[in-house]
Amino acid sequence: MNFCSDNVTAVAPEIMTALAAANQGAAMGYGNDDITRRVEKLVAQLFETEVAVFPVATGTAANALALSVVAPSYGAIYCHELAHINVDECGAPELFTGGAKLIDLPGANGKLDAALILDEVTNGALGNVHCAQPAAVSLTQATERGTVYKPGEILEIADLAHKHGLKVHMDGTRFANAVASLGCSPADLSWRAGVDVLSLGGTKNGAMAAEAIIFFDRTLAASFGYHRKRGGHLFSKMRFVSAQLEALLKDGLWLRHAEHSNKMVRRLADGIARLPGVHILNPVEANLFFVRMPEAVIAGLEADGFRFYREGGLGTIRLVAAFNTDPAHVEAFIASAARHAAAVPRHSAA
Amino acid sequence: MNFCSDNVTAVAPEIMTALAAANQGAAMGYGNDDITRRVEKLVAQLFETEVAVFPVATGTAANALALSVVAPSYGAIYCHELAHINVDECGAPELFTGGAKLIDLPGANGKLDAALILDEVTNGALGNVHCAQPAAVSLTQATERGTVYKPGEILEIADLAHKHGLKVHMDGTRFANAVASLGCSPADLSWRAGVDVLSLGGTKNGAMAAEAIIFFDRTLAASFGYHRKRGGHLFSKMRFVSAQLEALLKDGLWLRHAEHSNKMVRRLADGIARLPGVHILNPVEANLFFVRMPEAVIAGLEADGFRFYREGGLGTIRLVAAFNTDPAHVEAFIASAARHAAAVPRHSAA
Amino acid sequence: MNFCSDNVTAVAPEIMTALAAANQGAAMGYGNDDITRRVEKLVAQLFETEVAVFPVATGTAANALALSVVAPSYGAIYCHELAHINVDECGAPELFTGGAKLIDLPGANGKLDAALILDEVTNGALGNVHCAQPAAVSLTQATERGTVYKPGEILEIADLAHKHGLKVHMDGTRFANAVASLGCSPADLSWRAGVDVLSLGGTKNGAMAAEAIIFFDRTLAASFGYHRKRGGHLFSKMRFVSAQLEALLKDGLWLRHAEHSNKMVRRLADGIARLPGVHILNPVEANLFFVRMPEAVIAGLEADGFRFYREGGLGTIRLVAAFNTDPAHVEAFIASAARHAAAVPRHSAA
Amino acid sequence: MNFCSDNVTAVAPEIMTALAAANQGAAMGYGNDDITRRVEKLVAQLFETEVAVFPVATGTAANALALSVVAPSYGAIYCHELAHINVDECGAPELFTGGAKLIDLPGANGKLDAALILDEVTNGALGNVHCAQPAAVSLTQATERGTVYKPGEILEIADLAHKHGLKVHMDGTRFANAVASLGCSPADLSWRAGVDVLSLGGTKNGAMAAEAIIFFDRTLAASFGYHRKRGGHLFSKMRFVSAQLEALLKDGLWLRHAEHSNKMVRRLADGIARLPGVHILNPVEANLFFVRMPEAVIAGLEADGFRFYREGGLGTIRLVAAFNTDPAHVEAFIASAARHAAAVPRHSAA
Repeated sequence: MNFCSDNVTAVAPEIMTALAAANQGAAMGYGNDDITRRVEKLVAQLFETEVAVFPVATGTAANALALSVVAPSYGAIYCHELAHINVDECGAPELFTGGAKLIDLPGANGKLDAALILDEVTNGALGNVHCAQPAAVSLTQATERGTVYKPGEILEIADLAHKHGLKVHMDGTRFANAVASLGCSPADLSWRAGVDVLSLGGTKNGAMAAEAIIFFDRTLAASFGYHRKRGGHLFSKMRFVSAQLEALLKDGLWLRHAEHSNKMVRRLADGIARLPGVHILNPVEANLFFVRMPEAVIAGLEADGFRFYREGGLGTIRLVAAFNTDPAHVEAFIASAARHAAAVPRHSAA
Repeated sequence: MNFCSDNVTAVAPEIMTALAAANQGAAMGYGNDDITRRVEKLVAQLFETEVAVFPVATGTAANALALSVVAPSYGAIYCHELAHINVDECGAPELFTGGAKLIDLPGANGKLDAALILDEVTNGALGNVHCAQPAAVSLTQATERGTVYKPGEILEIADLAHKHGLKVHMDGTRFANAVASLGCSPADLSWRAGVDVLSLGGTKNGAMAAEAIIFFDRTLAASFGYHRKRGGHLFSKMRFVSAQLEALLKDGLWLRHAEHSNKMVRRLADGIARLPGVHILNPVEANLFFVRMPEAVIAGLEADGFRFYREGGLGTIRLVAAFNTDPAHVEAFIASAARHAAAVPRHSAA
Repeated sequence: MNFCSDNVTAVAPEIMTALAAANQGAAMGYGNDDITRRVEKLVAQLFETEVAVFPVATGTAANALALSVVAPSYGAIYCHELAHINVDECGAPELFTGGAKLIDLPGANGKLDAALILDEVTNGALGNVHCAQPAAVSLTQATERGTVYKPGEILEIADLAHKHGLKVHMDGTRFANAVASLGCSPADLSWRAGVDVLSLGGTKNGAMAAEAIIFFDRTLAASFGYHRKRGGHLFSKMRFVSAQLEALLKDGLWLRHAEHSNKMVRRLADGIARLPGVHILNPVEANLFFVRMPEAVIAGLEADGFRFYREGGLGTIRLVAAFNTDPAHVEAFIASAARHAAAVPRHSAA
Repeated sequence: MNFCSDNVTAVAPEIMTALAAANQGAAMGYGNDDITRRVEKLVAQLFETEVAVFPVATGTAANALALSVVAPSYGAIYCHELAHINVDECGAPELFTGGAKLIDLPGANGKLDAALILDEVTNGALGNVHCAQPAAVSLTQATERGTVYKPGEILEIADLAHKHGLKVHMDGTRFANAVASLGCSPADLSWRAGVDVLSLGGTKNGAMAAEAIIFFDRTLAASFGYHRKRGGHLFSKMRFVSAQLEALLKDGLWLRHAEHSNKMVRRLADGIARLPGVHILNPVEANLFFVRMPEAVIAGLEADGFRFYREGGLGTIRLVAAFNTDPAHVEAFIASAARHAAAVPRHSAA
């Protein structure tokens, strides 16, 4: 009963089937195959616009490589202080950009604050040879706090970015969860809201190892192939990465997966929200949330066999649901939490 | 009937089976899983020594990441002028080392010449602040010309490297073919011959996307995990990379694959060697070779539906066999070549 | 009457004389000259310990190159959010380290807060493959706010750094001002307080273009020469950089210069501190300070021919004195400020 | 009596005078000063075209920074195998370009062979994602062998470069010697012959530490300031670098210096050319040459107090004259060589 992350799961059966189906005879390597070509068309259809699409196999690669073409080595990239690119990629953006600077900003609920970005890009750095040059903004959708940017929120940031000559990158590791949460079209949450390049996640949504870098501003894609190759991220048997993306994206599997994980987390949050001493720390809008609980409850849950990550200091945990989270596990979690919460002496339930 | 490369093939059924078997329930990510642990033990057994093993998914990543810990940014790495790291990785070694310099050397049949390396490391560069510092030698086994280094040949180079403080890397994309060809133990062709770190190929030998970086000098592995992560090459669902390696390496599948591809190429070479106008350009020791033929023969083969790469100027092609090359395709190739060669007017058969 | 910076000044006559004296005949290049050797001895004497010394010509080079040997490409360097390396070097540390991450921290009066550093190095990053690895702390002495770390303050940070395996770098662009301010020995403010490598400034203290990177932990110096050379910072006619350092450091010229600029700023601050509407924003401990003033006063000073930089929003300016600041300019500034301050209607003097 | 290099010399008196003259009062930093502005105009006049000019202080910086804007990180730069950027800069071009690949080519007398460059850029690398992308050609003028490219030779290479989308860089450390040797205008040897960016040397021609990066293709200059700054090569007291350039370039001092050093080397070569056992190895066209001599002669010269570098194996030395080489030293060298050569038994004079 694992609520640690959406990347500890197995692979969806539809994707295993697609891999088996792709395993027929020889195919030219490095993306010169039919499946990869079909994926590009499929993405264009889904996003209702022309795109350039590059499959890769890890989220870190999808982010860092996307950044490699939106920021020069002397550039600055604005991101949330909790952004995966800032705290969980061991400097991958710095490697692939040749040393660009991530400038991390605070912001409630994991979201960037347009006013703070504006401060940064108008503080005199632009054109000042002593300063890393404002080059891009990177947003995470859904955020690391499990919240979701609405189209207007993205647009506000993107407009200000574009006005000052910056590009907009979206870390869409959990983009599907945001689409499912808001009921918007993929286009509304990406290029129509000003996103220039999207790192679209697949691995956390049921794939084995598949992400897609999607360029809406296709001028950015011109040199991308070289960056991907020299990063070691161009697969010879590319069709097996592409087949995962195709299986996810056609017939809406990606959204069904996201709807399920969102629903499981919604259920989980609702089930524990009113327990004594339990405080949910962010709006629950996607497939994860942070919650403060009495240590005794946390320890009780662990003793009952539930796994999850503790966050920062005492008493806060992160709960994540996946495409295949068993509703029975969710109910069991709620029951366990309720039982342990009831056992905590009332005055200590802070 | 594709003789282009050993990376255009499908995936071996045993490996598809292993992927399906790995797809059971949740498992902790990033290599903290049972299969990955078993792979490390399996490699240690096969190589008869303690090792540190890091699975990755592409050959370029396996090479460039290995180099990132054997050469500093101001280092020089000696390699053959035809080495994959030198001509086919779009600067990946330069990226991952932070700008180390590949110094490429000529050498018959794709092999490095120890005397030329010695010249380089004793030409005054060592300790000279103006020069990239001699740091490592990288050999390819089997070579890009389809030849194989014997243990003594490796040892000669490794001894001279170590004597001058250099590390020895082996690009073992086709290491299995070399082991199968020579009948040596993996240990004899690697650490016993002085290799410090081996990039062991799986993808060209029947896997979907799996390579292993194997450190015999385990002090080199200390910082490797960070380099792999910031390169975007640490897979969250690592077990699916490891499962491929396990399936290949246990029960000798990797060597049966290599024996087959070696045998197919041997048969192919024998079958065309005496045709008029046909000149095999290198000793045939692994699973590929280069051959010069009259253009009419090449064109005839292409017209008959055979696929292969032309090399350099007119009249030279490369032929590669894979783990699953159909013997009937080999016989068909020989027959086609013989037919077209016979049709070439004798005086032009040069 | 320029109070913009201590780098807009002319060169001290003693240093011009030293350059002329150095210009005698041929001398071997790249630091293999007598003057450079004498500088190393002189620094050792001054700092009362064995050192490795590397002259360079700019402060950015002195900082970024020093950092290149204290942090690996996957490392994290903790610094104050106002640090020159963080905001004024256009990514030089990122370039020379191959992409290490500066983690900038707040702190009163331009000083790092040991507690915040401790939080960072104990937050789970150490040994966690997803995180840039804590590698070094960089302090600025005197700080960008014109304050000075006392030996005990440095030692507290250095002890905690060393305890967790981090190195300590000091950006000593204005180290002389700190020594002069505290009356400590150079040793007390550097290695005895735990500093491993010091970038000692000369350019802002009367030189033409001369800084010294001083390694107290000489193991760090082993590869430094290569980094300096490949950064383009190894001068062929090195003696002319070294001659500047020699002239500064022998006979105490560097401290006399610093005492003068400190004194000028002390006088300036004292002279305007009690003017209506004038608020000095930091303790005045070295040769610069920040001060808030009514806009009318600032405009009046500008109209009277005084030059200085405005900082951030309205009403704050930075005043810097140099080794050769004319006391008459200081008095004139005070008089002008007093005159304009008196003319500001009392109720608006906020 | 030092014939080691033109960078072991003192500084020309005119340049010392210019430094003293520049040392008047405060001046805004980082190139916002009058002298730097005058240098840009002066260069434009001398080269008869509009230019963007950036002073730096070392030749390695001048080369590597120029390359940083003509080649992307995934680019290839073609150069002679003896080029300073290839063998004497410890990987500076790799650092500043973020890992571009130098592809070194052989060529008689230190000159690039247009046919070999053509082979490289038409060998299938262009647009091939596996290959470093042909980006630039770098020529050295005068060459490392002391020879000089004629305008037509440069143009042939530049035309072919431009035809394939490559930029042309010239390492002009000894550009003055080439101009003096050919009697061409600076324009004829640079932009009129297709050079896009020139690293113009000053240090080896009498300056203390001054080089200029001159962009004829000014679109390349757009981001250059950022690269220079983050390389640590933006001097706060820039006027002192610019003053050296101004002194050199105005009133023809740079050409008088070059004429002298060329003449001294011409005299030296003529004086020893017919001695028994002495073989001058390259055409003598600038201010250095390589010569083979009996070991006894070399040893004799050394014993007589002459200094020079030995090159490669036994019996070859390099002789360099500088702007201030004393004609008496040249005569003394010839006399010493003649004496020692006469003493060598005839049959061993090979």
